[in-house]
Amino acid sequence: MRIGTALGAVAAACATVAISIGAIAEEGMWTFDNFPAARVKETYGFAPDQKWLDRVRLGSVRLENGCSGSVVSKEGLVLTNHHCVDSCVTALSSPGKDYVADGFITGARTEERICPGSEASILTSIVDVTSRVKAVTADLAPAAASTARAAEIAKIERESCGDNQRLRCQVVNLYRGGQYKLHVYERYDDVRLAFAPEQQAGFFGGDPDNFNFPRYALDMALLRLYRDGKPVRFVDPLRIDPVGPKAGDLVFVSGHPGSTERLLTISQLEFQRDQFLPWRIEYMAQLRGALLNEGTKGEEEARQVNDALLGIENSLKVFKGQRAALVEPSFFSSKVAEEKRLRDALAGDAGLRAKFGDPFADIEGLLAVQKRAFLPYQMLEVRFGAGSVLLADARSLFRAATEISKPEADRLPEYAPARLAAVERRVMAEAPVLPFLEKLEIAYWLEKTREYLGPDHPAIKAVFGSRTSGQIAAEIVASSQITDPEFRKRLWNDPSLALASDDPAIALVRSMDEAARAAREAYEQGVTGPTAIAAEKLAALRFEVLGEGIYPDATFTLRLSYGVVQGWNDPVQGEVPPFTYASGLWTRATGAYPFNLAASWVGKESAIPAGTQFNFVSTNDIIGGNSGSPVLNRSGRIIGLAFDGNIHSTGGSFGYDPVLNRTVSLSSEMIVAALRGVYGANALADELVK
Amino acid sequence: MRIGTALGAVAAACATVAISIGAIAEEGMWTFDNFPAARVKETYGFAPDQKWLDRVRLGSVRLENGCSGSVVSKEGLVLTNHHCVDSCVTALSSPGKDYVADGFITGARTEERICPGSEASILTSIVDVTSRVKAVTADLAPAAASTARAAEIAKIERESCGDNQRLRCQVVNLYRGGQYKLHVYERYDDVRLAFAPEQQAGFFGGDPDNFNFPRYALDMALLRLYRDGKPVRFVDPLRIDPVGPKAGDLVFVSGHPGSTERLLTISQLEFQRDQFLPWRIEYMAQLRGALLNEGTKGEEEARQVNDALLGIENSLKVFKGQRAALVEPSFFSSKVAEEKRLRDALAGDAGLRAKFGDPFADIEGLLAVQKRAFLPYQMLEVRFGAGSVLLADARSLFRAATEISKPEADRLPEYAPARLAAVERRVMAEAPVLPFLEKLEIAYWLEKTREYLGPDHPAIKAVFGSRTSGQIAAEIVASSQITDPEFRKRLWNDPSLALASDDPAIALVRSMDEAARAAREAYEQGVTGPTAIAAEKLAALRFEVLGEGIYPDATFTLRLSYGVVQGWNDPVQGEVPPFTYASGLWTRATGAYPFNLAASWVGKESAIPAGTQFNFVSTNDIIGGNSGSPVLNRSGRIIGLAFDGNIHSTGGSFGYDPVLNRTVSLSSEMIVAALRGVYGANALADELVK
Repeated sequence: MRIGTALGAVAAACATVAISIGAIAEEGMWTFDNFPAARVKETYGFAPDQKWLDRVRLGSVRLENGCSGSVVSKEGLVLTNHHCVDSCVTALSSPGKDYVADGFITGARTEERICPGSEASILTSIVDVTSRVKAVTADLAPAAASTARAAEIAKIERESCGDNQRLRCQVVNLYRGGQYKLHVYERYDDVRLAFAPEQQAGFFGGDPDNFNFPRYALDMALLRLYRDGKPVRFVDPLRIDPVGPKAGDLVFVSGHPGSTERLLTISQLEFQRDQFLPWRIEYMAQLRGALLNEGTKGEEEARQVNDALLGIENSLKVFKGQRAALVEPSFFSSKVAEEKRLRDALAGDAGLRAKFGDPFADIEGLLAVQKRAFLPYQMLEVRFGAGSVLLADARSLFRAATEISKPEADRLPEYAPARLAAVERRVMAEAPVLPFLEKLEIAYWLEKTREYLGPDHPAIKAVFGSRTSGQIAAEIVASSQITDPEFRKRLWNDPSLALASDDPAIALVRSMDEAARAAREAYEQGVTGPTAIAAEKLAALRFEVLGEGIYPDATFTLRLSYGVVQGWNDPVQGEVPPFTYASGLWTRATGAYPFNLAASWVGKESAIPAGTQFNFVSTNDIIGGNSGSPVLNRSGRIIGLAFDGNIHSTGGSFGYDPVLNRTVSLSSEMIVAALRGVYGANALADELVK
Repeated sequence: MRIGTALGAVAAACATVAISIGAIAEEGMWTFDNFPAARVKETYGFAPDQKWLDRVRLGSVRLENGCSGSVVSKEGLVLTNHHCVDSCVTALSSPGKDYVADGFITGARTEERICPGSEASILTSIVDVTSRVKAVTADLAPAAASTARAAEIAKIERESCGDNQRLRCQVVNLYRGGQYKLHVYERYDDVRLAFAPEQQAGFFGGDPDNFNFPRYALDMALLRLYRDGKPVRFVDPLRIDPVGPKAGDLVFVSGHPGSTERLLTISQLEFQRDQFLPWRIEYMAQLRGALLNEGTKGEEEARQVNDALLGIENSLKVFKGQRAALVEPSFFSSKVAEEKRLRDALAGDAGLRAKFGDPFADIEGLLAVQKRAFLPYQMLEVRFGAGSVLLADARSLFRAATEISKPEADRLPEYAPARLAAVERRVMAEAPVLPFLEKLEIAYWLEKTREYLGPDHPAIKAVFGSRTSGQIAAEIVASSQITDPEFRKRLWNDPSLALASDDPAIALVRSMDEAARAAREAYEQGVTGPTAIAAEKLAALRFEVLGEGIYPDATFTLRLSYGVVQGWNDPVQGEVPPFTYASGLWTRATGAYPFNLAASWVGKESAIPAGTQFNFVSTNDIIGGNSGSPVLNRSGRIIGLAFDGNIHSTGGSFGYDPVLNRTVSLSSEMIVAALRGVYGANALADELVK
């Protein structure tokens, strides 16, 4: 499972022999307005036409927590992965009622429950605004360009969406500065949980089997979109084919890959390989150890840390795969060769040089600053609080109060007037605070921040004083009022209260805010801003040399990938067939976690025909964010539900290897069979297939 | 602190601008029979003569747990670091009596207590046996050569030491196959603890200050060597000078650096950089997180994990420093240049090529196997049990029982007849088993082994069956009889009992032993054996090109380094002066761990003159294993106690940078002042300085 959850926790594609971004074989996460239909038709004798593309686009759902899904009934039912709703399932649970362990299995629509803070979006239009955005930054220095670009983007978004809360407008940067496109979405903020199996069914095999295949994971869940208290009606939803695919079938995955880094320069890849990824792995490995150990303290501790732990373990495998790909000489040299093609073109053409200078050198020149500035930026700004909801809310309240009095141009972009409603929704979302997890995360973040910045850093001295990390965390969890929605509301509505509050979470935020802003500014001015300028030049150079028949890096925007249902010849495992079947589950179950059967499955061997397809693999090129994507056949019927990549795909952020990389999906056969045979959810099954 | 403890947990030297192994400035961990006296004399107008060298050698102590020390009184008192006795202090403690927290502070010699399992050695002679060892392997294939070499070495050791338990004979490999030398030691196995301060005094500043400077750590302890129940008499011990050094003073460090890798080839360094170190860091970071969290469960849990945690955190900093050094382009290119000198000599001389072939290529050709084989070898063999005493003892008992019936040539070398007594002593040592720590280590090791080898590996299936790692660990800790010395004795004396035992620890060992041996054999045959052959050629080539005026990699044998007391100009901190003084401690103490004063120090500000030297730095080139080494002035008087390297030295395994690398020592002034002023240990202070 788990090609979703956290943005940036990416997967799928590449490993040893990655090929160019020009797209060979099934490589590519294509935008719907630039799908290589001619190439696909040539190879497979079939390609989606515009009607197919439009219909699939309107049936594809983006879950704003970093996942994908599809509309599968006229009454707003959305199919996605179990691991895409695990935060929701955790939030709906309580010490007395554990839906993670027991599943959320309800017969009646009236029992469907709102997922706190969840939002869903469906892409309705794409408009090219490249020239408008680029025009405002021409000839500006990096810092001024960043500000002007952000302002123009905000203006475009405001012009299109205004205050209409049913729409979501986003200008996205594609090809790393090559194009800017306005995406308009229908927005849904009443998303309810309709069905989730036990986590042990959705994630059978646990971390050991994650990213591996053969596999027996029922990684599915059903949500339903509501508006005004009623299910949203869809005229032409995508529908499930109760018969799964055959080996060799051409299949499509429509979803929202979160982030890839295939267009980075070699010096940027070296930074990832030598600095960023090793740091992330060390940081997350220690946190993993802490969370696992916390879970041994007791049942309630285990319940509270479960969701965070799954996310960390999944990301860790991805980051390890990414690092492994980058230290593989054959892979890295393929990236060097890719870059050489562009460098040679530049070197051989004075006109190109006059237009673009040397963007490779420009970017390389920033790495010394990046190396110095990235850790303070990460710890004080990006990962502030290490996941603590209390600290995140406290920071949003404190910063909103600070920013709201400033003119728009001077604000942090996420507090621009058009974005304040989103911040407010997030702060006001009613998610339960998990005290054991909060305490662990706050203390961990304090310790690691001190470790990286040193005990003599002024912000560290200010926040620690004569207390330990454990004491600070315990005080916040014991006495912060941020847990109280009324308190948050008061602070949101009265900035002076938020600025002056002696709430311990707010006090922590306040004591570090200056240092955090300084770290952010140093990084943005020293790295992000100048990189954006150089990257725009590089992107334009790339279009000139390679043409426009290439795909952009993933940006959590809607993409279509094509591929075939096919196993692979594994260097360790040997020949791996493309399908698993129901019968295999009973063989693999040992009785001990993580290979124990979920409670509903015990004794159900006869309820599912042994030959029912369980999971299957295909050559589609996907990555984290694609979790929950429908896998479609030529007719546009759903024959699978993507939930993972195989182990070779964990380096996929940087490239795609058609020989070894595979998408792992749950077959439509098992979706229907499990709903009926194991969970007795016949009404839902009927709704899906009718 | 902590340049000792675990062998392989190395420190000191290098970072950005490392220079050749030819030895520039103060670089080098020199053997006592090849000290560059002429060069030192030329630079400093003084060099040790043979008498100085002999006297210092006989006053230098190797602690077999991976540390160094010095004989500082005629009655066998040994000065070393607190962190070198932390295992002993933990072993002597119990839930009721915590010497780690409270210190081991006794007035009377009768209260000195045996450190369980501790041994000490003093080097009495060095004999060159290179030609004898090399002769037996000439023209043999790698596997046969390994066996023949091991047999000849065992024979030489047996000839010199026989069954004399008061001696220790070791043939050591120097210059990675360049020389084999027989070291003969006086051996002491009754080592008693005489004095240890509170850990909070010895390790003031904790992990944040570890490897950093300015520093205020009283990282000292006193042991006493006994034989036949009485203190060992020394005619001419090293003595402490109660006046510390001055800036610019020439100083010497005599001790036992554990391991460096400065003579590795570039392909071997790449393996360290890209495979080995990233794995070790990830493995240890997770374990660190688990141990830290375990310590939050309660006081007894914290007490039990303390010693293991300190070791892990220390090693982790070292490994991160090593990796950072190897990804620093300026450093790595200096290593490439070093190798190029040898490669060029080889390329330009047909005679050399005829003699040595291409050892660089030979080694590079082994890396594919190494990459495949190192994880099973590490998990099943080298790190079996992740520190669990129960599993280590169970394995020794089971393997001794298996090996003892074989002819010597077929045995695992550590079970050769001459080495069995050492195994027996280790198994029979009376160290308390710490159940919380044991459970954590066993479960952790099982989980990580499954993670790396996969749930389908036969050994993993065998050991897990239908149980979880936690269940397996809990059963072993609850019901293994390995904790009982009588049980261990019975199994040691009756191999058939050990082989057939249904003790759960033995059962675990038995279920995995075949796989562990196979992993070891694959690694030794595929990597260790052929590397040894190539390395001997490379070492001979190096001598031919560079001459013999070079120093060998550290091998936990006695070495002498020279340097001067001197601060450094730090890229982050600015100018760092060489000394700290007593007055600084009171300023740095915040009251909260790890910056709280140890209990004995509270209110003692007036008991220590403010200007008393506390810690100081010098340019000596040291590494892990040097912990506890005496720092000597020209007269051979002890003016300091080495306990750490600065942060720049953490990559020192691979090189030395005279600009940034520093040794951190406790001044002799503070040793005497603290014993008298803080601890009232006047008798010990008198014994030290008289």
